[in-house]
Amino acid sequence: RRIGLPEAVFCAGKTAEQIAIAAEAGRTAHGRCLLTRLDTAMLAALPSGLRTALDHDPLSRTAVLGDWPAVRDEGSVAVVTGGTADLPVAGEVARTLRFAGCAATVFADVGVAGLWRLLEIQERLAAFPVVILVAGMEGALFTVAGGLLPGLLIAVPTAVGYGIATGGHTALNAALASCAPGLLVTNIDNGYGAACAALRALALPADAGRESPAPQT
Amino acid sequence: RRIGLPEAVFCAGKTAEQIAIAAEAGRTAHGRCLLTRLDTAMLAALPSGLRTALDHDPLSRTAVLGDWPAVRDEGSVAVVTGGTADLPVAGEVARTLRFAGCAATVFADVGVAGLWRLLEIQERLAAFPVVILVAGMEGALFTVAGGLLPGLLIAVPTAVGYGIATGGHTALNAALASCAPGLLVTNIDNGYGAACAALRALALPADAGRESPAPQT
Amino acid sequence: RRIGLPEAVFCAGKTAEQIAIAAEAGRTAHGRCLLTRLDTAMLAALPSGLRTALDHDPLSRTAVLGDWPAVRDEGSVAVVTGGTADLPVAGEVARTLRFAGCAATVFADVGVAGLWRLLEIQERLAAFPVVILVAGMEGALFTVAGGLLPGLLIAVPTAVGYGIATGGHTALNAALASCAPGLLVTNIDNGYGAACAALRALALPADAGRESPAPQT
Amino acid sequence: RRIGLPEAVFCAGKTAEQIAIAAEAGRTAHGRCLLTRLDTAMLAALPSGLRTALDHDPLSRTAVLGDWPAVRDEGSVAVVTGGTADLPVAGEVARTLRFAGCAATVFADVGVAGLWRLLEIQERLAAFPVVILVAGMEGALFTVAGGLLPGLLIAVPTAVGYGIATGGHTALNAALASCAPGLLVTNIDNGYGAACAALRALALPADAGRESPAPQT
Amino acid sequence: RRIGLPEAVFCAGKTAEQIAIAAEAGRTAHGRCLLTRLDTAMLAALPSGLRTALDHDPLSRTAVLGDWPAVRDEGSVAVVTGGTADLPVAGEVARTLRFAGCAATVFADVGVAGLWRLLEIQERLAAFPVVILVAGMEGALFTVAGGLLPGLLIAVPTAVGYGIATGGHTALNAALASCAPGLLVTNIDNGYGAACAALRALALPADAGRESPAPQT
Amino acid sequence: RRIGLPEAVFCAGKTAEQIAIAAEAGRTAHGRCLLTRLDTAMLAALPSGLRTALDHDPLSRTAVLGDWPAVRDEGSVAVVTGGTADLPVAGEVARTLRFAGCAATVFADVGVAGLWRLLEIQERLAAFPVVILVAGMEGALFTVAGGLLPGLLIAVPTAVGYGIATGGHTALNAALASCAPGLLVTNIDNGYGAACAALRALALPADAGRESPAPQT
Amino acid sequence: RRIGLPEAVFCAGKTAEQIAIAAEAGRTAHGRCLLTRLDTAMLAALPSGLRTALDHDPLSRTAVLGDWPAVRDEGSVAVVTGGTADLPVAGEVARTLRFAGCAATVFADVGVAGLWRLLEIQERLAAFPVVILVAGMEGALFTVAGGLLPGLLIAVPTAVGYGIATGGHTALNAALASCAPGLLVTNIDNGYGAACAALRALALPADAGRESPAPQT
Amino acid sequence: RRIGLPEAVFCAGKTAEQIAIAAEAGRTAHGRCLLTRLDTAMLAALPSGLRTALDHDPLSRTAVLGDWPAVRDEGSVAVVTGGTADLPVAGEVARTLRFAGCAATVFADVGVAGLWRLLEIQERLAAFPVVILVAGMEGALFTVAGGLLPGLLIAVPTAVGYGIATGGHTALNAALASCAPGLLVTNIDNGYGAACAALRALALPADAGRESPAPQT
Ligand SMILES: Nc1ncnc2c1ncn2[C@@H]1O[C@H](COP(=O)(O)O)[C@@H](O)[C@H]1O
Ligand SMILES: Nc1ncnc2c1ncn2[C@@H]1O[C@H](COP(=O)(O)O)[C@@H](O)[C@H]1O
Ligand SMILES: Nc1ncnc2c1ncn2[C@@H]1O[C@H](COP(=O)(O)O)[C@@H](O)[C@H]1O
Ligand SMILES: Nc1ncnc2c1ncn2[C@@H]1O[C@H](COP(=O)(O)O)[C@@H](O)[C@H]1O
Ligand SMILES: [Mg+2]
Ligand SMILES: [Mg+2]
Ligand SMILES: [Mg+2]
Ligand SMILES: [Mg+2]
Ligand SMILES: [Mg+2]
Ligand SMILES: [Mg+2]
Ligand SMILES: [Mg+2]
Ligand SMILES: [Mg+2]
Repeated sequence: RRIGLPEAVFCAGKTAEQIAIAAEAGRTAHGRCLLTRLDTAMLAALPSGLRTALDHDPLSRTAVLGDWPAVRDEGSVAVVTGGTADLPVAGEVARTLRFAGCAATVFADVGVAGLWRLLEIQERLAAFPVVILVAGMEGALFTVAGGLLPGLLIAVPTAVGYGIATGGHTALNAALASCAPGLLVTNIDNGYGAACAALRALALPADAGRESPAPQT
Repeated sequence: RRIGLPEAVFCAGKTAEQIAIAAEAGRTAHGRCLLTRLDTAMLAALPSGLRTALDHDPLSRTAVLGDWPAVRDEGSVAVVTGGTADLPVAGEVARTLRFAGCAATVFADVGVAGLWRLLEIQERLAAFPVVILVAGMEGALFTVAGGLLPGLLIAVPTAVGYGIATGGHTALNAALASCAPGLLVTNIDNGYGAACAALRALALPADAGRESPAPQT
Repeated sequence: RRIGLPEAVFCAGKTAEQIAIAAEAGRTAHGRCLLTRLDTAMLAALPSGLRTALDHDPLSRTAVLGDWPAVRDEGSVAVVTGGTADLPVAGEVARTLRFAGCAATVFADVGVAGLWRLLEIQERLAAFPVVILVAGMEGALFTVAGGLLPGLLIAVPTAVGYGIATGGHTALNAALASCAPGLLVTNIDNGYGAACAALRALALPADAGRESPAPQT
Repeated sequence: RRIGLPEAVFCAGKTAEQIAIAAEAGRTAHGRCLLTRLDTAMLAALPSGLRTALDHDPLSRTAVLGDWPAVRDEGSVAVVTGGTADLPVAGEVARTLRFAGCAATVFADVGVAGLWRLLEIQERLAAFPVVILVAGMEGALFTVAGGLLPGLLIAVPTAVGYGIATGGHTALNAALASCAPGLLVTNIDNGYGAACAALRALALPADAGRESPAPQT
Repeated sequence: RRIGLPEAVFCAGKTAEQIAIAAEAGRTAHGRCLLTRLDTAMLAALPSGLRTALDHDPLSRTAVLGDWPAVRDEGSVAVVTGGTADLPVAGEVARTLRFAGCAATVFADVGVAGLWRLLEIQERLAAFPVVILVAGMEGALFTVAGGLLPGLLIAVPTAVGYGIATGGHTALNAALASCAPGLLVTNIDNGYGAACAALRALALPADAGRESPAPQT
Repeated sequence: RRIGLPEAVFCAGKTAEQIAIAAEAGRTAHGRCLLTRLDTAMLAALPSGLRTALDHDPLSRTAVLGDWPAVRDEGSVAVVTGGTADLPVAGEVARTLRFAGCAATVFADVGVAGLWRLLEIQERLAAFPVVILVAGMEGALFTVAGGLLPGLLIAVPTAVGYGIATGGHTALNAALASCAPGLLVTNIDNGYGAACAALRALALPADAGRESPAPQT
Repeated sequence: RRIGLPEAVFCAGKTAEQIAIAAEAGRTAHGRCLLTRLDTAMLAALPSGLRTALDHDPLSRTAVLGDWPAVRDEGSVAVVTGGTADLPVAGEVARTLRFAGCAATVFADVGVAGLWRLLEIQERLAAFPVVILVAGMEGALFTVAGGLLPGLLIAVPTAVGYGIATGGHTALNAALASCAPGLLVTNIDNGYGAACAALRALALPADAGRESPAPQT
Repeated sequence: RRIGLPEAVFCAGKTAEQIAIAAEAGRTAHGRCLLTRLDTAMLAALPSGLRTALDHDPLSRTAVLGDWPAVRDEGSVAVVTGGTADLPVAGEVARTLRFAGCAATVFADVGVAGLWRLLEIQERLAAFPVVILVAGMEGALFTVAGGLLPGLLIAVPTAVGYGIATGGHTALNAALASCAPGLLVTNIDNGYGAACAALRALALPADAGRESPAPQT
């Protein structure tokens, strides 16, 4: 009945009180709890006991309640970003993975309009069984990486861009329509989902494990 | 330079002559060639020598030129469809996998409006490392399976439906927006891509292998 | 000429003065008046006499001017939500029904990515002649419930979600395209409308009754 | 596990062979079977034994295999169409209802650009507990009827129109955005779904009844 | 070279300085100038000399610099609104007309979900050569009025509504797709344009007249 | 109750039998009947008695049953087209007007990418109280004419174009967003509606007159 | 008044008779005429005198009436396609250029999912002052080429693809949102327009020259 | 490997710290650096050393760190705007060009609803090899200028407008669908891109030149 992915409270659209209840429930059940989409304004509105207990990262808007688990995997997952503005989403990927005991390697600012940046790290990237690609604008990174790398590829389109790229739909559609074979895609900005998919592929459930309550709180 | 996924000629939008040239080139280079989106009208328009040499399946619109490889994997991939009308896309998945030596198991007509159909096979499905979900309409299958199964999940939305579901966009968006954690998504009707992604996850390259020309011609 | 549904003032897009005039007119005509989409900022801007006379609920953004009617129906309507963030809309449903004398039962956080939550209450839900389903994201709850429950089903998609789910369009389209037979749908976040539809089905007009002026002012 | 709505085979997107198998399976299980979206071209492609056994109606594209049940309800459901081109969808509504033993009354060509047509039948319509409104173009009928009639109102937008109205999206959106309180909506052209919803409201399951297999084949 | 419609400065997207320059230029050339989309925040940011010289109306966000002209027409134009929230746009219509010497009659809150409100004023409306219809949501008012009134009908959809009606697109599309013959449509919220169209139909140019500089500043 | 615009049967989406009944009914009531959207394939499918009685124009897809009325107006309406491919819609405008006794003047192929074509006829056009502009693609004609001409301007966007212009939505949106003041717009390809609007402006009802049944059947 | 680009008749949406008249007019005025979007069905419908006089290319659907001009430029323009299915549009580019005396070099099937294909020709491409990029699907070619090449870059998105890529909108949006600096874009499939833009950049007017009538008839 | 276009830091979506690092890196590598989309709020948040070193222009939201280069080109590029509200984007064009040593001439407020404004400067504009057209709303300027001017034409649609024109999509689509031959288009509001394209056409690389690091930072 349970599938063992990291517990997380999605904070957007919840009141401070609802977040506090869900986070405590998560910690009670599993010893720790991940919070996503927790911006600094909402952090400030949380009860002070909870607030000071959180390890919060403002760029990725994630926080952890309870201790981080030991690293059980290193070298399986690479996270590649097209630009500086994609770092918040890449941070959500890396922190969710780390919360499940998987230490990912982040390669930032590898946009293909400057192709050599990708070619310089191509061999290192080819060694990862799972590569998570995080890019906005027109998402050309997805296709170029898709043609160069043999591992499982997960495209995370981001809401980075303006005009026709507003909201991330152009990057999303480009990922879906990519002519690179076997590229898989998540919702726009869904770093949490990409991390969970990598854990599924690596069969690396969170230590709350298969007996844990459901992932949704 | 090559990433070892199954050679395929995507036939839609090509002339009979272009298809024939590409298919022969594929066979020359790798001993065999897969053709996708080859409907019976175009099959009839191919040069007769090529036409009779093809192993064509009208429902999935796929054909193979040359011998099928031996099965190298069985039991790793399940393909689940929501309805009867999703079978052409499921067939593209299964035939692409089989072309790369991977024998998948197909579970047809498991739509969640009749939930027991999924619950009856839940345990069998939970044993597969990779489950490919093929569904149109509102794509609720993606989320329900996503909450029940621990393996890598690949959603293939199909262009099955009418009105607001025309073209498959509702199923696609539902897959992307799913609250099941770690669900990954392909373009609408992209059975070939889902199969390639499964092969990436299983590290099961086609025997044409890493020295092969680019996968799509 | 009148059809006897609960009087309500829809406050979004009105000035404080317009709201005050409409609410007083409603009370004069029917003895009581329901206000919807009244957020705390606008509440604070109302004339203080009116403000203190209102029974306001900040989560559902509803308020009642005048006395609540007695309960005339209990056990006919269930309201089911997919997640915590759907509670404001569920509150609009329940408070509108209660304003018409119908006490609904709310079942919160029954998202189908954790299927057992729905299965555990399935039998209780099956006893309700009308079930109102409130969900955002990909709205898979609508279809799963639609296949399990025999009563009249009303889907209220909510604007909960991000990326492709922004604004609630994915949940709306999923409800409309559902392969569960006989599911009916309202506009995104339209809790008031779902409650009115339930009252139509139950033939339970507000006691302001058939002589009342038009329902929305 | 079963909810007792009329068995139906949705024929669009199925091969002749798939339709034949599904229809025979439906008759075997329930004594009769409804087929929807069966156009005359597909009818001609069915095995002749099946074809001659069907009671097919070309305008509504519905057919029945086996005997019609006796009428168990009359006077509960009215079906109102905005124009002549909406009659195919209205026919799908009425034939699905009749297949479940409910004889509906159809009022054709009651578009509100000629308002007197609706006003002339307003009193008769007000006597029906359920009124199904079938309209394309801008769907103004939905709102006008919604303000005049007290019963349960089900709007079925149709794909009738051109330019901005192509595909029925304008009528659909108008139904959803209607300021008539308590109007409920189905997918574009979903006459079958509207009929099932009416049966849910009337608690009038098909005689195959609650013990029957699931509605989806 | 000039067509004699009222000079107006469209203030949205302009800086305070740009507005001030354009308004003074308009007054210099024509003796008076109309400003549209001038909200109270921007009003406060204008140079105080200009600000105090303006006759500003906060609801319609319009202002006049210079004297109003005498009324040259009365009884030719009616402005009808569906709801209270449409009044700002109706105000832009009426103030633009008045700036050109045409005194319009406004009929507020005539939504067709309460049909009698329109029927009660039908005869009065039928006497106007030009009727401007201002409505949001599903815009059913456009079609009903279009079937009842013989004059020139101008539909102004408004950005009033939520969910599928957000931004006014549903009302716009309903106006365009209306089956009422001969209904004409403006952009969403374009009260200024509807007023100019009425002046074209009435051949009632502003007194700056045909010799005036171009309408755009 | 009737507003006196030309009787017309809109043939798209109707069966041959439905068209025949509606056309005869129209002639019986008013002595003549206009049919629109009647293509040559449907013409051939009509009962031969009706077919030979029709005055059919294949380019505009219009037909008249019964005698044409005498011309009662000449010189009031100009119809301007951007290109050759807009002539079918311009024909629907002109034939509908002529059916109501109004003889319009057509100016073909006046696209503004060759601006002199418009400037050469500018003075002649300025003399018409009503100018109907028919254009597809990007619809720049609407704005340029709107800045040059003083009469009532009706833009009819056409479904002429490809890529981003497919279906006429770009021309429609350009007409709506035009910065030419007072431009009014119809649905894409709605030549009939533009003609009816011109008749409203000119107060030139068809001779079937105010006692006639509703205009569209 | 004339700007000297190649005369062309756009045949889609025109009748055979209209095409014949426009082509003859073009030849009379300039000695030759280019026809675009002339498919083989319409070619067969042309008057036989014209048909046999045309130099028609079925793949690009272009034809020339009259003699081709001498080559006046070679080496200035490269045309690069992502895949085989883009060749019709690339043909429209090359034949339009050749009609104006400019001989372009076509590089076919250079999709970036097989990056080496582009890198192998990078140096040759860098020597062209103008490079026209023709690609469908997700259009990643545009960005990669944009980061490697110094010349003027014109992206022509094509309607090649399925699902989310249907109609070419994904390629179009990717071109517009590209983070390669200074990439310019045409409408989907607009090979003619890209060729004209190249001619503008090269100041290479057709020999029909500046005195010619307007370019599109 | 480098193509020699002006270095720029795109500031939207970056933190103050990220902007500071990128700007310093740009100056270190090339002696100067351009910052775009730097609004006054972010300017205030920059480290004071950087802030005071910047030459910032609030209207265009651009800033330069380091010395401006000498002018190397004058008279090659004209920038034309439709309205006052397009000036910020025109400023981004002109400042980017100036940063690369190219002094452009700006012609403001030349909207074609007042056609003489364009005709008065037509001859001057015809002398420029490159004309950049900046317009929002319905973008009719693009087509009219496209038919009058022989140079390379670059359309920059702006997000100026409301209703159907919100976000600039109508202007963008009009530019793409323009029937003026050879018009090229950038993303909405992409003044930087238009300037880079002009530099490509003029082969006027920034003096950081071909040896410079990649344009993206
Ligand atoms: N950033 C995120 N994006 C998408 N889904 C998330 C994210 N964070 C958490 N979730 C999912 O949302 C669930 C919690 O949702 P809720 O019950 O609304 O807090 C988690 O268990 C995850 O499945
Ligand atoms: N016209 C229709 N529109 C929508 N749903 C339908 C229609 N006809 C049948 N269905 C549904 O589709 C199910 C059968 O789907 P299938 O298994 O694909 O034949 C039926 O049991 C109904 O729930
Ligand atoms: N509220 C409005 N909506 C649409 N167009 C307007 C509005 N107000 C003014 N205009 C038009 O915009 C022109 C002025 O535009 P601008 O030069 O940007 O100030 C006026 O002459 C009108 O044609
Ligand atoms: N206003 C702009 N619009 C579009 N692209 C820009 C703009 N400004 C800078 N860029 C591009 O973005 C690059 C820098 O992006 P980043 O690395 O995110 O700072 C520049 O080198 C340009 O290619
Ligand atoms: Mg939850
Ligand atoms: Mg290829
Ligand atoms: Mg009201
Ligand atoms: Mg089924
Ligand atoms: Mg202006
Ligand atoms: Mg009718
Ligand atoms: Mg032409
Ligand atoms: Mg960067």
